Amino acid sequence: SRRIAAPTGTALTCKSWLTEAPFRMIQNNLHPDVAERPEDLVVYGGIGRAARNWECFDQILASLKDLDEDETLLVQSGKPVGVFKTHADAPRVLLANSNLVPKWGTWEHFNELDRKGLFMYGQMTAGSWIYIGSQGIVQGTFETFVEAGRQHYANDLSGKWILTAGLGGMGGAQPLAATLAGACSLTIECQQSSIDFRLRTRYVDKQARDIDHAIELLRQHTAAREAVSIALLGNAAEVLPELVRRAKAGGLRPDLVTDQTSAHDLIHGYLPAGWTVPQWKAAMADPAQHAALKTAAARSCAQHVQAMLDFQAMGVPTVDYGNNIRQVAFDEGVQNAFDFPGFVPAYIRPLFCEGKGPFRWVALSGDPEDIYKTDAKIKELFPENKHTHRWLDMARERIAFQGLPARICWLGLGERHLAGLAFNEMVRTGELKAPIVIGRDHLDTGSVASPNRETEGMRDGTDAVSDWPLLNALLNTAGGATWVSLHHGGGVGMGYSQHAGMVIVCDGTEAADKRLARVLVNDCGSGVMRHADAGYELAIATAKKFGLKLPMVK
Amino acid sequence: SRRIAAPTGTALTCKSWLTEAPFRMIQNNLHPDVAERPEDLVVYGGIGRAARNWECFDQILASLKDLDEDETLLVQSGKPVGVFKTHADAPRVLLANSNLVPKWGTWEHFNELDRKGLFMYGQMTAGSWIYIGSQGIVQGTFETFVEAGRQHYANDLSGKWILTAGLGGMGGAQPLAATLAGACSLTIECQQSSIDFRLRTRYVDKQARDIDHAIELLRQHTAAREAVSIALLGNAAEVLPELVRRAKAGGLRPDLVTDQTSAHDLIHGYLPAGWTVPQWKAAMADPAQHAALKTAAARSCAQHVQAMLDFQAMGVPTVDYGNNIRQVAFDEGVQNAFDFPGFVPAYIRPLFCEGKGPFRWVALSGDPEDIYKTDAKIKELFPENKHTHRWLDMARERIAFQGLPARICWLGLGERHLAGLAFNEMVRTGELKAPIVIGRDHLDTGSVASPNRETEGMRDGTDAVSDWPLLNALLNTAGGATWVSLHHGGGVGMGYSQHAGMVIVCDGTEAADKRLARVLVNDCGSGVMRHADAGYELAIATAKKFGLKLPMVK
Ligand SMILES: NC(=O)c1ccc[n+]([C@@H]2O[C@H](COP(=O)([O-])OP(=O)(O)OC[C@H]3O[C@@H](n4cnc5c(N)ncnc54)[C@H](O)[C@@H]3O)[C@@H](O)[C@H]2O)c1
Ligand SMILES: NC(=O)c1ccc[n+]([C@@H]2O[C@H](COP(=O)([O-])OP(=O)(O)OC[C@H]3O[C@@H](n4cnc5c(N)ncnc54)[C@H](O)[C@@H]3O)[C@@H](O)[C@H]2O)c1
Repeated sequence: SRRIAAPTGTALTCKSWLTEAPFRMIQNNLHPDVAERPEDLVVYGGIGRAARNWECFDQILASLKDLDEDETLLVQSGKPVGVFKTHADAPRVLLANSNLVPKWGTWEHFNELDRKGLFMYGQMTAGSWIYIGSQGIVQGTFETFVEAGRQHYANDLSGKWILTAGLGGMGGAQPLAATLAGACSLTIECQQSSIDFRLRTRYVDKQARDIDHAIELLRQHTAAREAVSIALLGNAAEVLPELVRRAKAGGLRPDLVTDQTSAHDLIHGYLPAGWTVPQWKAAMADPAQHAALKTAAARSCAQHVQAMLDFQAMGVPTVDYGNNIRQVAFDEGVQNAFDFPGFVPAYIRPLFCEGKGPFRWVALSGDPEDIYKTDAKIKELFPENKHTHRWLDMARERIAFQGLPARICWLGLGERHLAGLAFNEMVRTGELKAPIVIGRDHLDTGSVASPNRETEGMRDGTDAVSDWPLLNALLNTAGGATWVSLHHGGGVGMGYSQHAGMVIVCDGTEAADKRLARVLVNDCGSGVMRHADAGYELAIATAKKFGLKLPMVK
Repeated sequence: SRRIAAPTGTALTCKSWLTEAPFRMIQNNLHPDVAERPEDLVVYGGIGRAARNWECFDQILASLKDLDEDETLLVQSGKPVGVFKTHADAPRVLLANSNLVPKWGTWEHFNELDRKGLFMYGQMTAGSWIYIGSQGIVQGTFETFVEAGRQHYANDLSGKWILTAGLGGMGGAQPLAATLAGACSLTIECQQSSIDFRLRTRYVDKQARDIDHAIELLRQHTAAREAVSIALLGNAAEVLPELVRRAKAGGLRPDLVTDQTSAHDLIHGYLPAGWTVPQWKAAMADPAQHAALKTAAARSCAQHVQAMLDFQAMGVPTVDYGNNIRQVAFDEGVQNAFDFPGFVPAYIRPLFCEGKGPFRWVALSGDPEDIYKTDAKIKELFPENKHTHRWLDMARERIAFQGLPARICWLGLGERHLAGLAFNEMVRTGELKAPIVIGRDHLDTGSVASPNRETEGMRDGTDAVSDWPLLNALLNTAGGATWVSLHHGGGVGMGYSQHAGMVIVCDGTEAADKRLARVLVNDCGSGVMRHADAGYELAIATAKKFGLKLPMVK
């Protein structure tokens, strides 16, 4: 099977850096260190592909090599379908992936077309060529914790500790993110193998022997204001109620409570209280035991949520981390399960209101030094932004690059374009070896409608209105992003989301300065607009602060 | 209540013609001669609006007045939500109307948001400011008949006659369209009032006294090759079987058979055989009789379709005109009801394969002379295109302007940009008094996914794939159309379609020449691309003929 890796260095394969950039980035998406199943063109998220098939992949590369500076390549669900005349300030690539007329917007219809080779699942950044590996998960969790700290602890998590559970694929990022955010953490995990993996990769610092030991370690490190992460082998449905009991009796209280066990999947994701892990695995493997397993797991989730509610009642900030555990508990009779909020409304939406989101960039040179120099530039640009400094330092130290060197860093309106212009200047002066590509996740302030996640519980009830991501894509196309994409079904599956991507190249030219100054304001500005329109005060204030023109916002 | 009419003449209210154009066109959409219910901002199609409410309408005008030549106004379901910095070659307005995440893409959810003032139904050209009254219906029907003539009668309908039924809102355009296409026609209509209305407005030429008289008139006019339209009072479910009987016995045969009774609505739309009109109206008004009415109407539709099938069996081209009559007959047991095709796959799709669709333009001066001059220019540009000449002559004679003078004329790839450039030249030289706005319906070759209508029965089964209209909108934005829109639910309702609009202004500048040359090729070119990708030979040949770059089409 083929081994794909982006070319690096300063020699162009294509006619300009604006076409070289997508040429390298689609290949980077399929780098063996980046992609989950590169042999099937799968980048991440189950079946999120970079191109429909190898023939399409090869033709995309060929078309990009050939593309002139006044041409635009159209990609339809991973297939290069047309090259049209546009102009120098227009995008070089426009992509639409997995879009279906709503009535047909289901996995059944998707699968039928996919089987026939007529379609492709683009996920968010797979089909739009700006996925950069697991750095994003750590950073998203980090931002969530930092925002919690900002809201509840005057922006200072030192001496605080976070209680959570689950050290799986995503949940395993929690202890590292907590550390980067300056907090101690205690993560309950029922499988020793998961703890071992996170100890080995330094995502978690220590394992406690038992609850007493964990509490002793937490007392010690919070007192010393050391951000140390602790894992504890155990069942969250048992450990949390015990911690509640102790806290009520005057014992140590957590400063933030959440959970990332896989409660959304009661067969494979949640160990019932009182069960051993081998017993659990056996039940998973035996369909005859599924009903019993599900019943037991749901009952345990209810106990788990009850403990979370108890902490909340003591005044401890408590959130659901998108694993559906509130719903499970509610269905089990915990009537006030939804008393604590989801993490998007609680912590991400305020960031979105300021236009903040998962801004990222990639060094096309392939040289890590280029990223370190941009790290330094970000610090220089935003000297006040302490948690970003912490993030950058610790990311450099703790997170390995995958494929082309890249960095993620949540920036907001008024910041992103400064970063873009500064990088472009560094390319122009030769401080960086080659151009920088700037992009973001589709999960961003103005680019997604996803009523079960990013737009859950919008203040005005417009969770499902997808005019916004469509306008975002049109505006970025008008502004001159280098590639723009419109997808359906990312993150939460067919029928449940519509979202837009944007990537723009800093090639060091003055033309790029102009495009960057527009696009990196408009892209997140349209997110502030969307939230201001929904009535969020913070978004309205942000719009005023940065002089956005919102005709109907008085 | 307010009376809206577009300003006319050469004085600008806005800062340039690129903003003056949408400023005039949104007002034109609400002109009392154009809009169905201007007092409610409803343009056409039930509840298709030009703006969400009067406050939004006023602010759209105010924002357009203020808009600079490097700014873009964003309109979200009829509300002006933002003004962002772009550049001179970017669209001045970007609109997204009625878009919902698929799972929520229903009338129920739409209505909930609409009631709260959070949403708007954009239909196709209502919310995108390029509706121009009933000229479009006549022309669409005309093109359908012309295409039938091209396919079956070597492009010559003289001496031929079309048999149809229904002289209602849409169906009433049939006799005039047939005449314009050069054919005689016989339209069966069961209500004398409908016939009278069409006689009065000269949409139909004569009424026959009875079947014998109708046949006599048809013999006479077809022999003389006069394109005369004849109405006959009667019930299609009775008259058609009688005509079949006579044809089988050696009598006159029609040359094309279709139908525009409202068979899609068995309570209000189809008079059952043997019933009188007063009896029918009484049954409509009395819910207790609905079941009986429905049963009788359905049985009659089956007889009607059986007669159509009989004509088809005699070799007469027969099509369904989108009124669902085949389905009704099928449900009544006519197993081969779908033996004759729908009009889109039969006659419109071949046009789409050549990039042909409802191209239209409007004289911003308000002066009919400007349109007559463009009519002459089209004839000059396309001297071979006889049916277009006929259309233009007869449209001038028979169709009254509504609001700003406008013209519709189906042009294809290789033609549209020539028209645009010629108009722009006429504006530049002062031959026209003021700029021309060029647009089209969303029902066009590359701009719509609508599995129950425009994309029904696509060759490769991609009826529901909406990547295509999204790419169309992105490409037109990249190319520099003056305004671009993305809508959901037009024509067939929420959940059933996604589509894109495009309008571009000929302001006489050289910059406009460049934009027109790009956009008017790309817009319909992307339709040819979509059909070539689906495997239509004619589209592949058209793409080759005009040198479209389609990477995967060999
Ligand atoms: N909405 C979002 O954006 C978002 C973001 C991150 C995670 N999530 C959700 O978080 C959850 C975790 O994701 P993941 O990829 O890490 O899943 P995973 O299945 O890889 O990991 C779950 C971990 O929880 C452990 N576990 C199960 N039951 C337990 C119990 N009773 N006590 C202690 N540990 C237990 C398992 O051993 C496993 O290591 C999922 O439900 C996911 O959907 C959602
Ligand atoms: N798919 C499309 O794009 C498209 C385009 C045009 C029309 N249509 C369909 O065509 C149909 C007609 O549209 P309309 O707006 O003219 O409807 P309408 O209800 O205004 O007119 C229907 C006419 O048919 C007459 N009629 C009813 N039963 C009859 C019978 N048994 N014999 C003779 N006449 C009879 C009525 O008196 C009426 O004048 C509708 O079903 C419409 O959806 C579809």
